[in-house]
Amino acid sequence: MTSASEVPPELSPVFAYIDTNADQLVARLAEAVAIKSVSAQADTRPDTIRVMQWFADKLRARGLSVELVDIGTECRPDGQTLPLPPVLLASLAATDPSAKTLLVYGHLDVQPADRADGWRTDPFVLTEVDGRLYGRGATDDKGPVMGWLNAIDAYQRTDTAIPVNLKFVVEGMEETGSDGFDELIVSLKDTFLADVDYVCISDNYWLGTTKPCLTYGLRGIACFGVEVECAHKDLHSGAYGGSVHEAMTDLTALLYRLVDSKGNILIPGVMDDVAVQTAEELAAYETIDFDSDEYRREIGTSRLLYEKKADILAHRDEYRREIGTSRLLYEKKADILAHRWRYPSLFIHGVEGAHSGPGVKTVIPGKVSGKFSIRLVPNQCPDKIAAQVVAYLTAEFAKLDSPNRLSVVNRPPSKPWVADTRNQNFTAAKLAVRSVFGADPDLTREGGSIPVALTFEEVTGKSVLLLPIGGCDDCAHSQNEKIDRKNYISGTKVLAAYIHHLANV
Amino acid sequence: MTSASEVPPELSPVFAYIDTNADQLVARLAEAVAIKSVSAQADTRPDTIRVMQWFADKLRARGLSVELVDIGTECRPDGQTLPLPPVLLASLAATDPSAKTLLVYGHLDVQPADRADGWRTDPFVLTEVDGRLYGRGATDDKGPVMGWLNAIDAYQRTDTAIPVNLKFVVEGMEETGSDGFDELIVSLKDTFLADVDYVCISDNYWLGTTKPCLTYGLRGIACFGVEVECAHKDLHSGAYGGSVHEAMTDLTALLYRLVDSKGNILIPGVMDDVAVQTAEELAAYETIDFDSDEYRREIGTSRLLYEKKADILAHRDEYRREIGTSRLLYEKKADILAHRWRYPSLFIHGVEGAHSGPGVKTVIPGKVSGKFSIRLVPNQCPDKIAAQVVAYLTAEFAKLDSPNRLSVVNRPPSKPWVADTRNQNFTAAKLAVRSVFGADPDLTREGGSIPVALTFEEVTGKSVLLLPIGGCDDCAHSQNEKIDRKNYISGTKVLAAYIHHLANV
Repeated sequence: MTSASEVPPELSPVFAYIDTNADQLVARLAEAVAIKSVSAQADTRPDTIRVMQWFADKLRARGLSVELVDIGTECRPDGQTLPLPPVLLASLAATDPSAKTLLVYGHLDVQPADRADGWRTDPFVLTEVDGRLYGRGATDDKGPVMGWLNAIDAYQRTDTAIPVNLKFVVEGMEETGSDGFDELIVSLKDTFLADVDYVCISDNYWLGTTKPCLTYGLRGIACFGVEVECAHKDLHSGAYGGSVHEAMTDLTALLYRLVDSKGNILIPGVMDDVAVQTAEELAAYETIDFDSDEYRREIGTSRLLYEKKADILAHRDEYRREIGTSRLLYEKKADILAHRWRYPSLFIHGVEGAHSGPGVKTVIPGKVSGKFSIRLVPNQCPDKIAAQVVAYLTAEFAKLDSPNRLSVVNRPPSKPWVADTRNQNFTAAKLAVRSVFGADPDLTREGGSIPVALTFEEVTGKSVLLLPIGGCDDCAHSQNEKIDRKNYISGTKVLAAYIHHLANV
Repeated sequence: MTSASEVPPELSPVFAYIDTNADQLVARLAEAVAIKSVSAQADTRPDTIRVMQWFADKLRARGLSVELVDIGTECRPDGQTLPLPPVLLASLAATDPSAKTLLVYGHLDVQPADRADGWRTDPFVLTEVDGRLYGRGATDDKGPVMGWLNAIDAYQRTDTAIPVNLKFVVEGMEETGSDGFDELIVSLKDTFLADVDYVCISDNYWLGTTKPCLTYGLRGIACFGVEVECAHKDLHSGAYGGSVHEAMTDLTALLYRLVDSKGNILIPGVMDDVAVQTAEELAAYETIDFDSDEYRREIGTSRLLYEKKADILAHRDEYRREIGTSRLLYEKKADILAHRWRYPSLFIHGVEGAHSGPGVKTVIPGKVSGKFSIRLVPNQCPDKIAAQVVAYLTAEFAKLDSPNRLSVVNRPPSKPWVADTRNQNFTAAKLAVRSVFGADPDLTREGGSIPVALTFEEVTGKSVLLLPIGGCDDCAHSQNEKIDRKNYISGTKVLAAYIHHLANV
């Protein structure tokens, strides 16, 4: 895969070290995966704290100065108070005093995982099957964080000077809303973060499974809960059914009014500020390595949204006119990507308070809460969207003429992020990919949210780059999460090459 | 409360025993409640089996012949196989060989209960507060079953001859669908059940909190699951949202089409066979002791279904014409009762497969299942209703033009039941209530389902009576279930008096 001619001579021993010690690097990831750092669960909070200490020890052993910052406690919904995992700050100065400073972000907490959910192997035992390393956190985000540790080792063990000052910010609550994290980052603006030149985040994935990419945009997210209360307790559905305005009936009517089966958001005004897609942006999508057939197969569906002729035409006429062509290449592909990356989408998460287990429970819940979220894109303003959602749900509820009680709650939103890619940070990352893969990466956006990207950009005022190493089929957040061995190893090389090129662009 | 003049002399010592030993009878209920016989949960299955053995021992100690019938195993949704609790059959012959035979039914399993759900006391420790006995199963159905044990004691300890042959059928899976129970009852038609003259079931509640009632009708129930699958795994809502026809969006659209916010069932044909309300039936409702204000307060709502003028008018014009009056008494009351008892209602239980916990989970579920049920009334045919539901959902799903996969599953339904009350069984029960309360009971129906009522009627061909002893505010199936001490004690007397009157009508 590596085109030898592209590898700068300084990197040859570094790459050779990584290849020779691959098994040891995988064992290191296994050690990380074995710590059950599920940040959402109270019972695994000690492990989530422990993983931070474990990683601090690893960095200290490599000569980094490390601080574990206490960011206080979390008040759980049940009233329990738990200590938050500390945030890790670490620095390693380059020998050259004029070296640039790279800030690396990662997280060591993971999503919940239980074998009963459909895992084929123990989620906390990294298990290699056909070159795939299965385990919770393998790709999100323990694999990439270990990649940085691997890269440091590869330089140090081969006596190669690390050509940039390295700083790390690693957290343990990313999967659960990063409580207290943003406040800490803002408070470090004039101290720990004052001299940062570039920011790199490895916490996302390639668009496909074979071609690397650099990511320059993310959607934001606004999460809502719409709660309807019909009774001050649960009611037997036989004894009361037929006489009560049931909360679940009202809630269903409200959820139904949020989004139609074509994916159109029905809340008035929500689409008003969505940035118009430019011809340049559309043209960039056309060349991206993305196979919609493979994507469909991966999901297990026969048809995606926006694949029907009428949908495509409705969305494409203006782009055709702008570009001045009667037919575009990959009509479907570009539309799919645009709707994953640069258009908002509304997703109904589920209902809290109603029966959700197997079998039958014939109890009318007194209070139910529907959860939904809107993925936000430039130039949507989260506060304006929240106001539109509340006004709409209130008005639609009034139309139901129900005696029930409505409340709409919204959690702190995260804003969308789009970066300029014409800078040294992205150039160095492109060269790094070329050093390892012999070809340029795609420039992609992502539909998910990594709020910290925007926070780092705002606080440092410097370029933020997302540099993924895992594949699109890694099943982050899902059952049987994995990272391919080759992605983990070549990803380590990309990170090592990236700091070399950062110092030389 | 007891009007002494109404108490037959034979019952005086029996009633006196019950009053004198009230604390001991309460302690017996506490013993029953302490056994965690939650039939829905695998971990409490041993307790559910134990409660049957415990009750068998109690009956044997009183001279009954008891058999615990093995009805096989249950295959749990997770593939686990569990033994079903045995069904208890017991008999006690009267001294008089010409005595009639009464069959008593009850169950000793209970609904799940967890202090965290909002119980003010430990649900498995019977706790008396201001004359209320709180505990899971206190009223449903351990209280009434202990009432029968109490009644036997009251006869035996006072050397009063029990004037009827007693038979008991007690089960341990009632709260979880009575797996295998109906088959057993049918198989006993020509043996254990061959000589039954009357059937009594104590497994429901008074309509209010002060006046006893006898119950002659129940609604049936048909439970459905409508499953939509959009992907063969869960999907990250950021990465995939906007490109996938989400199962939850389709499911919401289908659930929305089931019932409107006025409680009207939207499935074509479902109302076709509902028996027309007669003037006689309506007139009976008018005199029933039911306070709709109290009912509203108990629920915690400002308005019930069918309370708005337009709804009342739409439903009442025909009854007014039939009766020949321009205005009916208690317009609202009768409507409320009718919609609880003799009209079908559709209830959306909730969604399985989507996020239902506190907080936020941004994962698009690959498959979701919406659960709902229709309470059935005479003369609805469950099979016809099921066919209508499947046809309707299939047609409505087709309108969504979705590539997703739909399946509708229906569980075995239970049929509605309405009994003729002009017989010795109801007459004896009326006299029993008069003996204890000095007044006649109301004749009521119930909105819930007790499928075994119809099964016993069909298998024995004899009169089935529902004889409740708990109050409407007992919170069966809910948090803080209780039975009032006075209901438990006076209920025991009613059961004792009932067998006396059965032998003498």
